[in-house]
Amino acid sequence: MRLLEERIQKDGTVKEGGVLKVDSFLNHQMDIALFNEMGKEWKRLFADVPVTKILTIEASGIGIAAIAAQYFNVPVVFAKKTQSINLDGSVYTAKIQSFTHQRVYDVIVSRKYLSEGDKVLIIDDFLANGNAITGLIEILKEAGAEAVGVGTAIEKGFQGGGDRLREAGVRVESLAIIEDMDAASGSIRFR
Amino acid sequence: MRLLEERIQKDGTVKEGGVLKVDSFLNHQMDIALFNEMGKEWKRLFADVPVTKILTIEASGIGIAAIAAQYFNVPVVFAKKTQSINLDGSVYTAKIQSFTHQRVYDVIVSRKYLSEGDKVLIIDDFLANGNAITGLIEILKEAGAEAVGVGTAIEKGFQGGGDRLREAGVRVESLAIIEDMDAASGSIRFR
Repeated sequence: MRLLEERIQKDGTVKEGGVLKVDSFLNHQMDIALFNEMGKEWKRLFADVPVTKILTIEASGIGIAAIAAQYFNVPVVFAKKTQSINLDGSVYTAKIQSFTHQRVYDVIVSRKYLSEGDKVLIIDDFLANGNAITGLIEILKEAGAEAVGVGTAIEKGFQGGGDRLREAGVRVESLAIIEDMDAASGSIRFR
Repeated sequence: MRLLEERIQKDGTVKEGGVLKVDSFLNHQMDIALFNEMGKEWKRLFADVPVTKILTIEASGIGIAAIAAQYFNVPVVFAKKTQSINLDGSVYTAKIQSFTHQRVYDVIVSRKYLSEGDKVLIIDDFLANGNAITGLIEILKEAGAEAVGVGTAIEKGFQGGGDRLREAGVRVESLAIIEDMDAASGSIRFR
């Protein structure tokens, strides 16, 4: 998506260790007009796919998913990150290894909000090693729901998570795929 | 706001200890059509107020704030909860005592995204004892920005936080104010 790539070039900052800071428009300050263009683009890309629900993960997926949901006319469920799992059996859970925070956390979704027969589009801001998306797909399997697709804003192509998901048969649509980037020069090259 | 009150009566659950569960439409699963009606209502209520930015707090404020921002045509900044403050001086911080989680956490906003002269509307899902809103107002003061108003979805009137803010001169518009509620009978009475 040209608009998003241009914005990343203009306002993104490359840091050491494969970190791309886009907090001026994506995941701290949020440009809602841009989010609407992203929502429209996912709707175009997934026009042929039946969607009954959007699933995302707190915190930075929520804004994007909420705006995108307007183009699909479905509710959004956001998975919660927790360090203390409620063991009463009322939730689906998965363990996710965070790239950014270098730790493992549990994510949970209440059993009330995912059902067998749900056709779920997963939306998130970043796709790096794919661990968060893989965790959400596990939760959908546990629920008997179908992951009909994954829409991410920025895929770090050089970390391989998106390609591994595609090879496993998951339909992944990333609006900008970074082939490589360099902290010293600040350069960013898109696939 | 009648629509929200009706939804709380229909789908909300009163728990012991002053807890109202609305996670089927507000803060786990999100009814985006309802959020749009809430956004329109805040725009009507704050029509006379200049707004340059919306400030909310992760995680459950983000979806509401993102949708509401469409009616104000401004960006959203969400404050982040953290237990390890970055001490490099790049953030505004406040300490917030959580009613739900019975602990104190730090919230931070990057200095880059709040400026002197910003006229900020604070949006959040719940207003109980008012601690989260008070923390956000502290951050705005630190930034030299003006808190032009506070829009909350559900105010627990019986906890007094909203009235304390109003007495302190803050313009607070809650879309549903709960006067009292009872876990045993499940009854909810609005102001």
